[in-house]
Amino acid sequence: VTMRLDGTDRSAALAMVQRWSAVAGRDAIERDFRFGDFSAAFGFMTRVALLAEKADHHPEWFNVCNRVRIVLTTHDAGGLSERDIELAQEIDRLATG
Amino acid sequence: VTMRLDGTDRSAALAMVQRWSAVAGRDAIERDFRFGDFSAAFGFMTRVALLAEKADHHPEWFNVCNRVRIVLTTHDAGGLSERDIELAQEIDRLATG
Repeated sequence: VTMRLDGTDRSAALAMVQRWSAVAGRDAIERDFRFGDFSAAFGFMTRVALLAEKADHHPEWFNVCNRVRIVLTTHDAGGLSERDIELAQEIDRLATG
Repeated sequence: VTMRLDGTDRSAALAMVQRWSAVAGRDAIERDFRFGDFSAAFGFMTRVALLAEKADHHPEWFNVCNRVRIVLTTHDAGGLSERDIELAQEIDRLATG
């Protein structure tokens, strides 16, 4: 079972994904991405989809034109878990290279 | 220039996409789709992305797990246009096989 992060574990985990911010009113993190056009944005989404499917852990996400907003939380755990932090780090690696 | 649909043109156009509903507070239409799993949902999104790129007319959309919500509107026209109706019809054709 994946545990919800709490206390100092949660603080330490969040420090590892500094480009992500807390979602208001939910135990979740979010990051907005902007690309040159829809093609680049959807190409990125396709790479994230492959990561997510491999990890069996999927994002909530919204796309319009060249913008992608990703929200991560672990429904089974009722909030943020290590699986979200791991996926966020993998997404960060995609986004920077 | 793509014109915003109005009056009887708008009614006639909406009658052609009966699986879509008006979005509250916006001149836009939406449809929710549900699939067997994320893989099927994202496969559908990929096909819609190809349609959208070909038409140079892109959706606003949200995905979580096996669900996809698509909103169509024409930003340049300030509301619903024939381009939305055409894309909605093409998406409907994908969704039914």
